[in-house]
Amino acid sequence: MAGRGRLVALEGVDGCGKSTQARLLADALGALVTAEPGSTPLGAALRRILLDPDLPAVSARAEALLVCADRAEHVAQVVGPALAAGRWVVTDRYSGSTIAYQGYGRELDPAPLRELVAWATAGIEADLVVLLDVPLAVARARLGETRPDRLEGLDEAFHDRVRRGFLAQATAEPQRWAVVDGAARVDEVAAAVHDAVTGRLGAP
Amino acid sequence: MAGRGRLVALEGVDGCGKSTQARLLADALGALVTAEPGSTPLGAALRRILLDPDLPAVSARAEALLVCADRAEHVAQVVGPALAAGRWVVTDRYSGSTIAYQGYGRELDPAPLRELVAWATAGIEADLVVLLDVPLAVARARLGETRPDRLEGLDEAFHDRVRRGFLAQATAEPQRWAVVDGAARVDEVAAAVHDAVTGRLGAP
Repeated sequence: MAGRGRLVALEGVDGCGKSTQARLLADALGALVTAEPGSTPLGAALRRILLDPDLPAVSARAEALLVCADRAEHVAQVVGPALAAGRWVVTDRYSGSTIAYQGYGRELDPAPLRELVAWATAGIEADLVVLLDVPLAVARARLGETRPDRLEGLDEAFHDRVRRGFLAQATAEPQRWAVVDGAARVDEVAAAVHDAVTGRLGAP
Repeated sequence: MAGRGRLVALEGVDGCGKSTQARLLADALGALVTAEPGSTPLGAALRRILLDPDLPAVSARAEALLVCADRAEHVAQVVGPALAAGRWVVTDRYSGSTIAYQGYGRELDPAPLRELVAWATAGIEADLVVLLDVPLAVARARLGETRPDRLEGLDEAFHDRVRRGFLAQATAEPQRWAVVDGAARVDEVAAAVHDAVTGRLGAP
């Protein structure tokens, strides 16, 4: 055991390249790669509910509580035990997504939302959050022709608020957030993400 | 429209007779009768998850967030609109159940749990909570031979903490809680519940 591991969260709008970059970063670091929502049995059941395009609209508070339930279980079963065992963990989405989607996107008051997230995670924050920022047109083009899930199917104004919500968090906490241009080539983005992580946190 | 309606919550351990008494009370008052969890499309999906005896153990915080998600949706879609339209509403379980089951039963710190519940309900509290108190042996006998759900299947010590959790809330807020002996005959309990409600809140 080498003390607590480090937690790196990749954040950004759908289509920003998080999943690919999380995998590449975890490979480079020898870290555990994981994702929200859906990385526990409970989370998989909640993910089906959350993203089901056929479910009637869910109230904003209920949606926030569901994503936090997924995160609480993810922390209890996956992230917390790995960190406690000294592993580095790279997660595709974490607390920043709740502030961006449910706070900025759904327009819930961010102050109680931050308390909710802190309680759900038992206070386990990301050591570094890397925001892959891309213009919405780029993200849309990458998502292509697949049928959008419930959140992806929301209007342009929603996704614009979400993107601004991520940027606002990065601006407010520059010591804990790094912004990387996600519109560049995959290998260029991977190098920038890797540099940001090792520059801030050192190597595992 | 005659102003905001009144919200009456029936609380107690499984097998205390809440469901029967909620229906009888609502009939007598001409109130809407509803229940948690499961009274919305989202809630029905969550109820299946929450009570599934085959799901692996869920962490205490995730469980609390799930029951609050169900409640947030219940308030947004059912309870809130009915109250706003001037109706009286009788609900089989409400916020007191979260404090009793997840606070006392699962032993989560009650202070942040109360904040969580207040946020989930957008501050809509029951005007009166009626606790149907029964000894655990009576509740068990009533539940009979059916296969217990995930919460019912927990051990005696858990259910004892839950019962004490309900009684502690009633003691702490005597102006908003009434305790009725739930072990009496159904018609006697119904009369006592009706008297408690009309004595405190008047008639609709």
